[in-house]
Parts: sequence; C-alpha cells; structure tokens
Amino acid sequence: MKLKPLDERVAIEVKEDLVEKNVGGIIIPDTAKEKPQIGEIIAVGPGRTNDEGKVIPLPLKIGDRVIFSKYGGDEFDIEGKKIKIISRSDILAIIE
Amino acid sequence: MKLKPLDERVAIEVKEDLVEKNVGGIIIPDTAKEKPQIGEIIAVGPGRTNDEGKVIPLPLKIGDRVIFSKYGGDEFDIEGKKIKIISRSDILAIIE
Amino acid sequence: MKLKPLDERVAIEVKEDLVEKNVGGIIIPDTAKEKPQIGEIIAVGPGRTNDEGKVIPLPLKIGDRVIFSKYGGDEFDIEGKKIKIISRSDILAIIE
Amino acid sequence: MKLKPLDERVAIEVKEDLVEKNVGGIIIPDTAKEKPQIGEIIAVGPGRTNDEGKVIPLPLKIGDRVIFSKYGGDEFDIEGKKIKIISRSDILAIIE
Amino acid sequence: MKLKPLDERVAIEVKEDLVEKNVGGIIIPDTAKEKPQIGEIIAVGPGRTNDEGKVIPLPLKIGDRVIFSKYGGDEFDIEGKKIKIISRSDILAIIE
Amino acid sequence: MKLKPLDERVAIEVKEDLVEKNVGGIIIPDTAKEKPQIGEIIAVGPGRTNDEGKVIPLPLKIGDRVIFSKYGGDEFDIEGKKIKIISRSDILAIIE
Amino acid sequence: MKLKPLDERVAIEVKEDLVEKNVGGIIIPDTAKEKPQIGEIIAVGPGRTNDEGKVIPLPLKIGDRVIFSKYGGDEFDIEGKKIKIISRSDILAIIE
Repeated sequence: MKLKPLDERVAIEVKEDLVEKNVGGIIIPDTAKEKPQIGEIIAVGPGRTNDEGKVIPLPLKIGDRVIFSKYGGDEFDIEGKKIKIISRSDILAIIE
Repeated sequence: MKLKPLDERVAIEVKEDLVEKNVGGIIIPDTAKEKPQIGEIIAVGPGRTNDEGKVIPLPLKIGDRVIFSKYGGDEFDIEGKKIKIISRSDILAIIE
Repeated sequence: MKLKPLDERVAIEVKEDLVEKNVGGIIIPDTAKEKPQIGEIIAVGPGRTNDEGKVIPLPLKIGDRVIFSKYGGDEFDIEGKKIKIISRSDILAIIE
Repeated sequence: MKLKPLDERVAIEVKEDLVEKNVGGIIIPDTAKEKPQIGEIIAVGPGRTNDEGKVIPLPLKIGDRVIFSKYGGDEFDIEGKKIKIISRSDILAIIE
Repeated sequence: MKLKPLDERVAIEVKEDLVEKNVGGIIIPDTAKEKPQIGEIIAVGPGRTNDEGKVIPLPLKIGDRVIFSKYGGDEFDIEGKKIKIISRSDILAIIE
Repeated sequence: MKLKPLDERVAIEVKEDLVEKNVGGIIIPDTAKEKPQIGEIIAVGPGRTNDEGKVIPLPLKIGDRVIFSKYGGDEFDIEGKKIKIISRSDILAIIE
Repeated sequence: MKLKPLDERVAIEVKEDLVEKNVGGIIIPDTAKEKPQIGEIIAVGPGRTNDEGKVIPLPLKIGDRVIFSKYGGDEFDIEGKKIKIISRSDILAIIE
C-alpha cells in the first residue's frame, strides 16, 4: 500500500523515540505549547496548483526528518506504523 | 442518475469495510481526531475557475481510493449507496 | 415577474418531492448534517466580475437540477412557488 | 440633496408595500431567515477601484428594483423617505 | 497643526448639527443600527499603495460632506473641534 | 544600540506630554475608544516585500510625529525611554 | 545536529540575560502585553515560495539579535540550549 498525499500535504512516520537516540540532544519538554513531534517523511504531495494550473513543488523529500506540530494533521495506524498526514504549514523544520 | 459535482468537489462512495480487506493493514483508530474515512471517487468536479475564466482541473479521477476527513462534506443515500460530496481540501491522500 | 440574481447567485425552485419520483433512488437522510435539498434552477446570475471588469460566467444553466445546502441562501414564496436565491458556493452538484 | 454612495455601495428607497401591488405575487414569509426586503435604487456608487486604479462599475442602475438582505447596510430617514445605503454583496437579485 | 492621515484614512470634522440645517431633511433615527454621523472632510490620506509601490488615490477630497459609521475610526478633540480619523471603508456616501 | 524594525513596523518614542505643548491644542479625551497616543518615529522598517521580492517602502520617516493606537504594538523601556514597535496599520496620521 | 526551518521560519537561541549585559539599557517590563524576548538567530528558512515557484528570501541572517513575541512559535531544549522556531511575522526588530 502506498499513500499519495494531496496538494501540500506529506505523510510522516512518527518516531518519538528517535528524539534522544539519533538526533543527539534534542529534548522536547512536556510543557511545550504545541507539543512538537519528530518523524520521517514517507510520502510527499505534488505541491500546490497555482492559478495557471502550474504545480509548485514542496521543499521536502522522502527520508527528511522533520519537527512538526502535534496538533496538526490526522494520525493513522498503517501496517503497524504510526502515520500522520500533515500540511506543509504544520512542519516547523528539517533536522539534518 | 449521475452526479456532476461543482467546482473543486468530488463525490465519494464511502467504503469503510474496504479498510481492512483491500488496503492491507490500514487501521484508523477510533480515537483519531478528525475521524478519517476511506472511499472510492465516483464523480469529479471540473476544478476551480480562475480569474480569467480558465478551469484548473483536479488532481483526482474516478476510481481513486482516498482517505478523507469524516467531518468534511455532506452525506447522502443514493440508490442504496452511502455517497459523500466533499471538497478537494478535505481529501488527505490517494491510496495506491 | 422575473428575477435576475446578482453576481454568482442563482434562483432555485425548491422541489423536495422530486427526490424520490424523478431522481430514482436518492434519499437524503433526516440526519444529514447540512440538510441538503434538491431543486431546479430558474434564473442564473451573470457570474463574478474580475479585477479587469471581465465577467466570468457560472457553470450552471436554467433547468439544471441541483443538490444544495439547506442552510445556504434566502427563501421566498413567489407566485405560490418556494424559491431560494443561493450562492454558487452553496451548490454541491448537478443531478443528470 | 443628493447621495453619492462610496465604492460598491448603493442607496435604496425601501418599498415594502411594493411587494404585493407591483411585483405580482412575491411574498416574503415572516419566517425568512435573513428578512429580505424590496426597494428601488436611487443612487449607485462608482464601483470598486482595482489595484491599478481602474474603477470596475457596478451591474446596477438607478430605478432597478432589488431584493436585499434586511440586515445589510444602514437605514436613514431622508426627506420623509426610508433610505438604506447597502453594499453590492447584500443585494440578492434585480426584479424585472 | 495639520493632520496627514495614513494610507486610506481621512480626517473628518464631525458636524451633527449640520444634519437638519444644511442638508434639508436628512434625519438619522436614534434607532439606526450603526449610528451614522455626518461630517466634513478636513484631510485626506494618499490612498493605498499597491504591490508595485504605486499609490491608488482616494475618491474623496477636502470639503466633502460625508455620512459615516459612528463606530468606525477614532475620535479626538483638536483645537476645540471634534475630529475623527476614519478608514475609507467606514464612509457610506458623499452628500451633495 | 539601534533598532531595525522588520517589514512594515516602525519604532516610536512615546511622548504623551508632547500633546499639549508642541501640537497646539490637540486633546485626546480619556473616553477615546482606542486610546490614541502621540510619539516620534525613531526607526522605520524597510517596508513589505512583494511577491517578486521587491520591497515597497513605508510612507514614514525618522522624526515624523504620529498619532497611533494605544493597543497596537509592543512597548519597551530602552535606555530610559518608552519605545513602541508598531505596525504601519496601527498608525492613524502624521502630525505636521 | 542542524535545524533547517521551513519557509519563513527562523530558529532563535533565546538569550534573555543578554538584555541588560550586551544591549546596553533595553529593559522589557514585566507588564509588557506580548512579553517580548531577545535572542540570536541560529538558522534561517529559505523564505516564502511565490505562485511562480520563485523563493523570496528572508531579510534575516544567522547571528542577528532580534526582539520577538514570547507567544509566537514553539520552544525546544536542544543540546542544552533553549531554542525557538518562530515565523518572520513574530519578529519585531533586529537589534544592532
């Protein structure tokens, strides 16, 4: 099964345990207002369609690890994984 | 009878039982915030009309299986089927 | 008497009894959130005027049978008929 | 005294008694949600000014009888007449 | 002292007593929803600046007598006069 | 220390006592709805950046005395002075 | 670990103690409505993407000391530092 997010959405595999192991030191305090989460992008939408019908692609790609707002998007369990479909506007930053 | 959705709307036959049988493992937890649903597109609107009168078509076609927000759109019973007319902006992803 | 709706509005003769007789099977459940209604378009506005003064016409014509949101627009009794003046954005689909 | 409405506004002489005498059958039920009223346009604004400074005129003229939303605009008594200054967006239709 | 209103604002000297003496018959009922007032424009802003940096002037000039919404803008006492700085969008009509 | 306001913001030194001494007669009543204040501009942002990347400058300069809304912007004490960083849209007029 | 903020966001290291030591006199009163904070930019997003796909860069760079609204953005602890990811629109001014 493959997800093709619409427009400016991406699908993210939520990986909260990734926080301390791989990223080396990032700690999201429980008191953080918007409860940011960390995950890995598994599917990227084509981008928005402008008023001439031209598609403007997203500045994101499969494999990007991102910080996003917990309250954005919708969460699913797909084949045992925790997946979120979320809008570009709810992604705060890419972690490199 | 045939439905021709207006502008950026599509008509979807809601198929919740499709979730576990055909899609192989997608499970939508009862606790999901926006209660996503799965269905099959049975009619597609022409798309939005831009300010010059040009129509920008939708990136969706009849037969596409999609995840959409339960709270978007309006639901009807048509010839015994559960049909929803929904805006492009309430469709999260195409399932391939 | 003739109505000429302004801009992107249309006038619809509300025909709820049309639902089961002519349309062959469409049933709008009482529990439908937006209480969709069925009617026939009796007058169509010219469309919106863009920022250059050009009029972009509506994708609707007199005689079209449409599903629309009960809560959209304003209802009148005109010459014994139940008429609604409604915006394009409150029309969900054309029934063919 | 003459009123020159600004931008996309018009001045309307409210004529509710016109409903049954001249228009032949239009009855606005007391239960109508937006309380539509009938009146005659006595002054028309120049229209909106676009971003290049060009004025896009209104599709309305003095003498047009219109249906409009009771809750739109502001009402005055001018020289014994009941006058309303109202935006284009609150006018539903021209009656011909 | 001279006021130069910014962008699409104007300064108005509020002259409520002008209503019955000069304008010949205009009476604003106490029950009017938006409490319209009458005044004379004493200063006019340059107009809005479009996205190319071009200024689109206002269709108003010093000396224009206008009807405006009581609840729009801010009121000052300047050199013994009652002055209001108000946006173009709160001015309903010019009185000629 | 120097402040460089972002985009369409300016920095203002709030000078309420300037009201009666220099401006000759302007009195802001305590009952004024938006509590306008008077001050002197000490720093001006570059202006907004349009969609082509071109910067559209502000119609304001250092030294301009302005009336602005008390409730707009954020106030700081900087080197003993009362400074406000405020958006162009909260400035009502320049006092000349 | 490196953060690449998305679109018009920046990452800021919050440095409240910087207020009195380095900036020479700026004092943010506890009563300030939006609780402004001071920090140093450690990462800058690419800017917004316009409707032709062209990226319009931000007028900010790494090392800029800025005043920003406490209530804007999301706060993290990263490698022992207090980091905020914030939108351009929540940054009030650069301190030079």
